[in-house]
Amino acid sequence: MPRTLWIESDGQLATWDQTRLPFESAVIPLGDEAACARAITTMQVRGAPLIGAVGAYGLALALRVRADDEALAAALERLGGTRPTAVNLRWALERVRDRVRPLPPDQRASAAWDEAARICDDDVACNERIGRHGRALLEALAKRAGPINILTHCNAGRLATVDHGTALAPVYALHAAGVAVHVWVDETRPRNQGASLTAWELAERGVPHTVIADNAGGLLMRQGRVDVVLVGCDRVAMNGDVANKVGTYLKALAAWDNHVPFYVACPVSTIDPWARSGDAIPIEERDPGELTHVGGRAPDGTIVAVQVVPDGSPALNPAFDITPARLVSALITEQGTCDASVPGLRRLIGSERAR
Amino acid sequence: MPRTLWIESDGQLATWDQTRLPFESAVIPLGDEAACARAITTMQVRGAPLIGAVGAYGLALALRVRADDEALAAALERLGGTRPTAVNLRWALERVRDRVRPLPPDQRASAAWDEAARICDDDVACNERIGRHGRALLEALAKRAGPINILTHCNAGRLATVDHGTALAPVYALHAAGVAVHVWVDETRPRNQGASLTAWELAERGVPHTVIADNAGGLLMRQGRVDVVLVGCDRVAMNGDVANKVGTYLKALAAWDNHVPFYVACPVSTIDPWARSGDAIPIEERDPGELTHVGGRAPDGTIVAVQVVPDGSPALNPAFDITPARLVSALITEQGTCDASVPGLRRLIGSERAR
Repeated sequence: MPRTLWIESDGQLATWDQTRLPFESAVIPLGDEAACARAITTMQVRGAPLIGAVGAYGLALALRVRADDEALAAALERLGGTRPTAVNLRWALERVRDRVRPLPPDQRASAAWDEAARICDDDVACNERIGRHGRALLEALAKRAGPINILTHCNAGRLATVDHGTALAPVYALHAAGVAVHVWVDETRPRNQGASLTAWELAERGVPHTVIADNAGGLLMRQGRVDVVLVGCDRVAMNGDVANKVGTYLKALAAWDNHVPFYVACPVSTIDPWARSGDAIPIEERDPGELTHVGGRAPDGTIVAVQVVPDGSPALNPAFDITPARLVSALITEQGTCDASVPGLRRLIGSERAR
Repeated sequence: MPRTLWIESDGQLATWDQTRLPFESAVIPLGDEAACARAITTMQVRGAPLIGAVGAYGLALALRVRADDEALAAALERLGGTRPTAVNLRWALERVRDRVRPLPPDQRASAAWDEAARICDDDVACNERIGRHGRALLEALAKRAGPINILTHCNAGRLATVDHGTALAPVYALHAAGVAVHVWVDETRPRNQGASLTAWELAERGVPHTVIADNAGGLLMRQGRVDVVLVGCDRVAMNGDVANKVGTYLKALAAWDNHVPFYVACPVSTIDPWARSGDAIPIEERDPGELTHVGGRAPDGTIVAVQVVPDGSPALNPAFDITPARLVSALITEQGTCDASVPGLRRLIGSERAR
């Protein structure tokens, strides 16, 4: 199975156009910096790690055209502005810059390409390790009969990364090891990343799954049909509070109320040493149109957005919520699992080696 | 403002086709038992009290065709099976049955029609009383500045009843009394009754409101932007457990976690003396197509259902969930408010006079 970002046999970089999933598996070539920038801006690629990787390759492609210091700075500026809030993008761009700046211009493009490839390999290796640690944790839930039932929210799968995903990495690892799994896929309103992307990638890899309304998870937990909740996250505060796609908090409450473990999978880089608690994490409020209009495939095969509220209905669309640390059973990172607590995170960060 | 279920000048029963709201105000005639049953099954009418009223009229219409004991029993059976979770439907059908059974068959149809009309009048009066009791409770939350922020799930408004609604009756009563209110409207996936029906009827009556994703309520409560959660319900067990639209339980958990009162408004008839706890209440699983296809208005003005999952995606669509009594601050009924507990419900039912 190819990665989410791959090199074609002619040497060209390519990815899926995620705005056309799940109805159409359209490959888009990323032949130059502009294509990479457009893919990020239009959300043909999304997910922090994938955006970082595409940005890094975009910088390498820009340097093929012109690679002097001025061109390097300008390309950094352009690519860094494609998703201003994506910390991971800036991190990847700076990693490439730091690699090529000491080199003479005629060596920079090839070194940047090489560094972008390493960023991808590192992401894959990181997610593989998350998968391994998560698998060890989840294997304890395996039953004599029937699959481990895992509920997930949003898409923290391979489509959000270069491969494997974060929350889905343990799922793929279990599945590959022959452990029976079944995933309850929250549709994840308002943007439906679960219903579209998570369902698509689980189907592609043959992992049994069922799409449910975000509203259904509490009932399923009460009915004993969920063994574990496993989500990714956007940011972890130093006290273990977790910022993730809006609705995560409600699932954590239901998991707590039903004695279902609630795990958060994320690279260590997601931990924000400057956020003391979830209260320090700003909550982005996005375009209400994402809520009032739902995209999908009409009976005639066209992709359209239908309005689901009366004309003129006011709507509010916060994109994330905060799950308090007390509801998080553990964090699963590439460095191992840890408590969602100040000592747990301190130990984890302290033990991390420079990668 | 007309009722939700009315008699046309030609004597024909009629209602709104709620599957076509909020974009189209289509009236459907309910000319025979089959039309009533179909309206209930296809959710052209929904909401326990309205379903009960339509079921009662359906029975009256069935008795116009044949009214012997065997036909009466068969019609009861058919109509009772249109929505198995709706205890109110069974209650209304039995009320009509008890009225007509002592009568000779040729008098049954007209007596049943008469009884159905009384059920409607009683519903309106009942909801007015719920509104009064709820208003008294909620007025305590009024602030010096800003409105009372009320979060509601699904539609327990006038469209769910013959008039006024249950959960929205106190809201309309407060609004009519000049108390500032603002309603957070859960869109209520998968059928979007909040986004379509609740938003529509609040706008129609000029009540300030904002539509939100079902996922957003937990965040808003954490942010202190919700003063009270107020929902209707489909069935109350004798221990105070509440069956309501799927997702209600998640909001009750968030309310509990944030010290926000969680009130359930319902007629006493919603209390099921035969259900000792929520575990005794069967949960209807509906067509997964309700989840996988979202109805709305396309840019060209047509009403279509767009597919939001990959082809062949398995999906599960439970319609209700159970909110345990411990999360319910109080029940608001036409007889007054009471604790969601065995003693609370016993006292309430004990105090109820035959109506």
